[in-house]
Amino acid sequence: MRILGVDPGLTRCGLGVIESASARRVTLVDVRVATSPSTLETPARLAQISAVLEAVLDEHRPEALAMERIFARSNVSTIMGTAQVSGVIMLAAERRGIPLSLYTPSEVKAAVTGDGRAGKEQVTFMVQRLLGLAEAPRPADAADALAIGIAHAWRGAAAPVGSGATTDAQRRWAEAEKAARRRS
Amino acid sequence: MRILGVDPGLTRCGLGVIESASARRVTLVDVRVATSPSTLETPARLAQISAVLEAVLDEHRPEALAMERIFARSNVSTIMGTAQVSGVIMLAAERRGIPLSLYTPSEVKAAVTGDGRAGKEQVTFMVQRLLGLAEAPRPADAADALAIGIAHAWRGAAAPVGSGATTDAQRRWAEAEKAARRRS
Repeated sequence: MRILGVDPGLTRCGLGVIESASARRVTLVDVRVATSPSTLETPARLAQISAVLEAVLDEHRPEALAMERIFARSNVSTIMGTAQVSGVIMLAAERRGIPLSLYTPSEVKAAVTGDGRAGKEQVTFMVQRLLGLAEAPRPADAADALAIGIAHAWRGAAAPVGSGATTDAQRRWAEAEKAARRRS
Repeated sequence: MRILGVDPGLTRCGLGVIESASARRVTLVDVRVATSPSTLETPARLAQISAVLEAVLDEHRPEALAMERIFARSNVSTIMGTAQVSGVIMLAAERRGIPLSLYTPSEVKAAVTGDGRAGKEQVTFMVQRLLGLAEAPRPADAADALAIGIAHAWRGAAAPVGSGATTDAQRRWAEAEKAARRRS
């Protein structure tokens, strides 16, 4: 299954395309960071981000779109731009009939590192390892977009702990899932 | 000049089209309220609002779009949906090359009532009067959208106080503008 992971933002919007095969293996297809300068007005900035998004959708035809769920943060001006971008992305997905799923940052961190409070470096390291990349994906927005895609690929499909196909990372993810279920 | 005023919202999005002629006269062209049920997922809700917006843009070809400027409010879930809708509207305007202006609620209230802290009933009453409507525009989202359009039509074009063409409302608007300039 081809998945587009999106880390939404008006200044930088991470767009990571992965292919999720059997045995919970994920491979990198493409990763881009759409940018727009803060010197432009918001409508023009949204159009720049949208143009890159539409190009990625045209080229890779993902079957699913996964995006970070947005919460209110202290920086109100940033959150407004992020919400506006997320609206544009949601509409693009809906118009193409692509199902969209939302994940909190801690769900994504737990998926790729086993720890919902993992730092950015740890997420980047695990994304590189899980996708078998020679170099770490940069900037952080690219790694985050790929992490969101991986979280979606693995959602509800945790391999049983101790099964032959399970990697260290997958075992930690399954354990994190179990721990999360115990807490809720 | 044909102006589309937009009161953005995910549950109800007011869309008011007015024609602004000489002597600061404004007339109603069309007013609609696009709605979407909260039972739907956000992408589908954005698509419903977008479809009505695109129909209004196709039919009336406004030369300018005026929208309420969004600020953080206490209800975070509402503000996120409003911001997402506003992103969709901004992108639609940009794609069609329609210039977009943003107005704060108090700027809009000052424009149509002369008082930046006017209540909803007062805004509705003045919109009805300024547009010469037999009935008050309902719901409030419709009246607000029209008020935003009127605020844009009158922006920076306040008739000189005491000139023959000035109505009571226009005189109050000019006075409110002067008062605002004194305060800033």
